[in-house]
Amino acid sequence: MGLVVQKYGGSSIADAASVRRVAARIVETHRAGNGVVVVVSAMGDTTDELLDLAEQVSPSPPVRELDMLLTAGERISMALLAMAISDLGAEARSYTGSQAGLITDSAHGAARIIDVTPGRIREALDSGAIPIVAGFQGVAQDTKDITTLGRGGSDTTAVALAAALGADVCEIYTDVDGVFSADPRVVPRARQLHVVTYEEMLELAAAGAKVLHLRCVEYARRFDLPIHVRSSFSNREGTFVLSDEALAARIDQGDIMEQPIISGTVADLNDAKITVVGVPDRPGEAAAIFTALADAGINIDMIVQNVSAASTGRTDVTFTCPQGSLVKATESLDAVRGVIGFEDLLTDAEIAKISLVGAGMRSNPGVSATFFKALADAGVNVEMISTSEIRISVVTRADVATDAVRALHTAFGLDADGEAVIYAGTGR
Amino acid sequence: MGLVVQKYGGSSIADAASVRRVAARIVETHRAGNGVVVVVSAMGDTTDELLDLAEQVSPSPPVRELDMLLTAGERISMALLAMAISDLGAEARSYTGSQAGLITDSAHGAARIIDVTPGRIREALDSGAIPIVAGFQGVAQDTKDITTLGRGGSDTTAVALAAALGADVCEIYTDVDGVFSADPRVVPRARQLHVVTYEEMLELAAAGAKVLHLRCVEYARRFDLPIHVRSSFSNREGTFVLSDEALAARIDQGDIMEQPIISGTVADLNDAKITVVGVPDRPGEAAAIFTALADAGINIDMIVQNVSAASTGRTDVTFTCPQGSLVKATESLDAVRGVIGFEDLLTDAEIAKISLVGAGMRSNPGVSATFFKALADAGVNVEMISTSEIRISVVTRADVATDAVRALHTAFGLDADGEAVIYAGTGR
Repeated sequence: MGLVVQKYGGSSIADAASVRRVAARIVETHRAGNGVVVVVSAMGDTTDELLDLAEQVSPSPPVRELDMLLTAGERISMALLAMAISDLGAEARSYTGSQAGLITDSAHGAARIIDVTPGRIREALDSGAIPIVAGFQGVAQDTKDITTLGRGGSDTTAVALAAALGADVCEIYTDVDGVFSADPRVVPRARQLHVVTYEEMLELAAAGAKVLHLRCVEYARRFDLPIHVRSSFSNREGTFVLSDEALAARIDQGDIMEQPIISGTVADLNDAKITVVGVPDRPGEAAAIFTALADAGINIDMIVQNVSAASTGRTDVTFTCPQGSLVKATESLDAVRGVIGFEDLLTDAEIAKISLVGAGMRSNPGVSATFFKALADAGVNVEMISTSEIRISVVTRADVATDAVRALHTAFGLDADGEAVIYAGTGR
Repeated sequence: MGLVVQKYGGSSIADAASVRRVAARIVETHRAGNGVVVVVSAMGDTTDELLDLAEQVSPSPPVRELDMLLTAGERISMALLAMAISDLGAEARSYTGSQAGLITDSAHGAARIIDVTPGRIREALDSGAIPIVAGFQGVAQDTKDITTLGRGGSDTTAVALAAALGADVCEIYTDVDGVFSADPRVVPRARQLHVVTYEEMLELAAAGAKVLHLRCVEYARRFDLPIHVRSSFSNREGTFVLSDEALAARIDQGDIMEQPIISGTVADLNDAKITVVGVPDRPGEAAAIFTALADAGINIDMIVQNVSAASTGRTDVTFTCPQGSLVKATESLDAVRGVIGFEDLLTDAEIAKISLVGAGMRSNPGVSATFFKALADAGVNVEMISTSEIRISVVTRADVATDAVRALHTAFGLDADGEAVIYAGTGR
């Protein structure tokens, strides 16, 4: 039939019993006539346990050695999964990232894939075996050292392998049924999306949706590889992530009725807000501020600059960044205070970023009006606004985030009839 | 000064605290001006825990996958050890068996080293770093699959690397102070040997001494590489394992007085005895018996054939093999019973093999007489006898093994003044 790459996260293979359950699912896909390549994360809490050990040995371990340590996790899970598959009568062979041809740069802990040469995986497939590949890891092209890909690494491994092998689809198995119109833990009436486009998924991920990592979606879009996000705890169809063209083709074929205007709404509580007060209103001052932050390696999300008061010749610049970067950001700005000549720094970690994402925004001018009316009706005060072609984001107080998301979800007609099913745990 | 390869077993690195302790010892050797290469086993019980997991997933896992799984153990310990060394201000880099150039055949679970190409280890040494190498593992030359070396594997890795690098000495760190004249748990007055020759060590290992594996001693002898067996829990000098020539040179230099006539005495309780009763006394019958056993992969140790009784034209053949092979041995003999025409099979697992080893036997004709008199005085009945140029072994009842070893130890003047120190645990 086809070639499928399946990725299973840590929560899907938390213990021996779930390894056997996942093995049965893989063998079923294989017996149905598909070529199957499997990518696995480390089992359950293995990564945390290894990090604990590292901490006991050294407060600041070298990144090269941390990567060597952490990659032991996938080595264990992939070998066990191969054993469980063999026990069911199919042939499975496990491969490290290096053996599978995942070639990366040498940025330990956050390496980027620069080439995929899956010769051994192809040979295994040709011989009728099921290759099991360690997610999250690769080998550095120059140093030949073992690297890890950082957050979302296993998903990225799966998509990169699927693209290199010319697979028909990359199935990402997780602990939810797919991508939802909102986090079901926040909005019980969230509905599962059948299809989203790469662009929508990128905006959802950037807005704080956890189900797929930005990086793996970017990779899939670049190679036009369909992703199928689904649960390893059920047999239900999940959410397909596709190109606009593939989506249009599905609509033409009658597989789906039409693309909804709005895909979903997301609250992100991990950002903080910094206001640089009394910045002299001269050309180059904003550049000086954001150069200082960039040099400190801080990711900036939203930026707002007020019109300056004519009487003072000064203005305020406000931006958001991850809460974890707050201290570093204020330190790096304090260091250039004399040069820039601003008056004060105000920080605020009690904020939420509320986003609405949908490709249909492009052709529906009424979306903004509905958006702000819904928030106003819910008594939610908006502090900052940022938009893209298919997304509106606002900053609010953190304690009204749930009200805001629920109000938007209802206002845009996203509420489902029943409640969503939630499974325990998360993968990496 | 020189180049030292140090091997630490699982008991020396059982937890984070002992990893840090071992790191301090390594850094000390390095700061004294030596090049240091370290070989490590898996931490404490890691291997058993991984085998447990495998058993939960599959009753008979494929050997390739079992090797992939088990090699995660050294990956963890070597990365942690490198971190601990870095924390002390020295530079350490960990390498898998494959990265260190340990090339093996593809006999998973018991692979043999066929080449060592330690280019990366040499580079690390040249740059002043301390390479940490995973013991017990390699990569198959033909399949490129990960292999393990089986029992004694980490010691063999250390000796093979030391030979390939032209090291001055290979230090094997364990939980005893060195090689003893008897197992200190059996003979409290056992004395530590300062020096033994490769031949003596091979005979001691074959006789059942656990401290060094036959295979690693064979490897060291082939490359004339001195081994220094010592404790990771003390700073005392241990036991040097050397060639006859190196030993003679040390005696000439006055480092040691002279080689003792007897090195030690060993009891091995892991063998069983099988008697094939009433074998027709014709040429080729013994060959038929031992061909059947060889085909079944059974290691035979001692063999005795009685003179046949002229009246019956039949004889009895008795041999010893590991207790674990007893069932397989009897099954394979039963299968050829019709062809050979023997009358009965008697098995006996309640035996001990008692051995006396010493290079001085060659030039001291009185040893045998003292040996048998000591056993007779202790009331020990001898059931089988086997000798080499530097060893005498006998089979006795299992329950007199301790008496036999103590009697021999005293009779050959091996008893020390004080009692030996024993540490807990064992390595692989």
